[in-house]
Amino acid sequence: MPRLFSYNQFASGSDVVKAYADKHSPVIICDKQAKRDKPFRVKVRIGRNVMHPNAPDHHYEYIQLWNLETLVSEVRLQRSSFGDQPVQIEAEFIFIPKVSLHLTALAYCNQHGLWMSEEVDVQVTD
Amino acid sequence: MPRLFSYNQFASGSDVVKAYADKHSPVIICDKQAKRDKPFRVKVRIGRNVMHPNAPDHHYEYIQLWNLETLVSEVRLQRSSFGDQPVQIEAEFIFIPKVSLHLTALAYCNQHGLWMSEEVDVQVTD
Amino acid sequence: MPRLFSYNQFASGSDVVKAYADKHSPVIICDKQAKRDKPFRVKVRIGRNVMHPNAPDHHYEYIQLWNLETLVSEVRLQRSSFGDQPVQIEAEFIFIPKVSLHLTALAYCNQHGLWMSEEVDVQVTD
Amino acid sequence: MPRLFSYNQFASGSDVVKAYADKHSPVIICDKQAKRDKPFRVKVRIGRNVMHPNAPDHHYEYIQLWNLETLVSEVRLQRSSFGDQPVQIEAEFIFIPKVSLHLTALAYCNQHGLWMSEEVDVQVTD
Repeated sequence: MPRLFSYNQFASGSDVVKAYADKHSPVIICDKQAKRDKPFRVKVRIGRNVMHPNAPDHHYEYIQLWNLETLVSEVRLQRSSFGDQPVQIEAEFIFIPKVSLHLTALAYCNQHGLWMSEEVDVQVTD
Repeated sequence: MPRLFSYNQFASGSDVVKAYADKHSPVIICDKQAKRDKPFRVKVRIGRNVMHPNAPDHHYEYIQLWNLETLVSEVRLQRSSFGDQPVQIEAEFIFIPKVSLHLTALAYCNQHGLWMSEEVDVQVTD
Repeated sequence: MPRLFSYNQFASGSDVVKAYADKHSPVIICDKQAKRDKPFRVKVRIGRNVMHPNAPDHHYEYIQLWNLETLVSEVRLQRSSFGDQPVQIEAEFIFIPKVSLHLTALAYCNQHGLWMSEEVDVQVTD
Repeated sequence: MPRLFSYNQFASGSDVVKAYADKHSPVIICDKQAKRDKPFRVKVRIGRNVMHPNAPDHHYEYIQLWNLETLVSEVRLQRSSFGDQPVQIEAEFIFIPKVSLHLTALAYCNQHGLWMSEEVDVQVTD
């Protein structure tokens, strides 16, 4: 089965290993509070601090945002839309929450597989 | 072949026809100037003024952003992420332009097919 | 994080539980030998023996085929393409293998999440 | 707006132009008769007679099968699944028709845009 990689699996590694994990890791950036039935924005950035290549043979292909077992949305990334240099790709997800959220982002690198963010909890109130 | 629908094809119709076309039409909202090699944001809203249903058997499935013949990005919409009421769905696209843009959005309704926005030109400068 | 469900997690459950798991489980059907650099076919069926609903509010949305950590291909399923009755959806993947395969299918049900097949090994020879 | 390219637009061109159009054109291959409510198979091949490159910076990304204005299914192609040589990519679509079909395939090349097959009619009977 495809393994799900995450930064913490590599956090005790060498600086090279940590940079490898850093640049592959999606990071969720959002408020920790949301209003029920109102549009809510979640940004996902690929790379904690390190930029990932965006070359024809090595690039990110998609980002999925999950709320526990439910897929919230998916952004399909076109490589040519992010230049030819390493980059911290950002994608924005807009949706309308009903209940409190436990968000995870999954992102797929065509060379190094499927990477998972840390989970982020969002309280949804009236 | 699948027809590409757009608001202007229905603009001379009755109020009912125009409301039908209005709620299906994607609208591009963005600055008309962008900086080369810097992240640029484009919002696409579905519905000019009228909200589209978001029911299990009638909803929007995806939005693609095109620059002439080049696909910029695609957002896959999950119906359950936008509640059960009619809604003007918004999606945001972030990308890094190199050259001036002639943007069109295409969006797919599972009942009424593929709808196209008006084209929006963006000047990209250093 | 989204859990990855699989039949074996439910295999010791009641008949109702096992039928629930059965109808959600993707099954890989293919030869166990392939020729290098020649097109190879892999069928994925959803449901071991039990049919899954195909209703507007409960249906499968996509099937991904993975070779270890590499995505081989993805089929996006339109609900309306499979009728209104329960069904064992089948999708076919055609690709050109270079090296021996360890295949897993992932499939997403919009009500019950992401389900994983058993892994199937395929020997690729000249 | 993105133009929809098709072979016939280039059929009166030079041999070079025709080979360009040939290798980009999706071709629908299927029976002309189908049974209502039974699984039906449609193959789409990219390239009438000429193989298209499958290089990291020039390859096909997806194939959609349409029945008039209704999307039947979509196959997302991973470049690495088809080797490094020019290839006539084939994808297979399996679905359950209710009514007679007027099929078109659309396929997206990341260098040369969106290409459309000829329409194929399929009579669906009990």
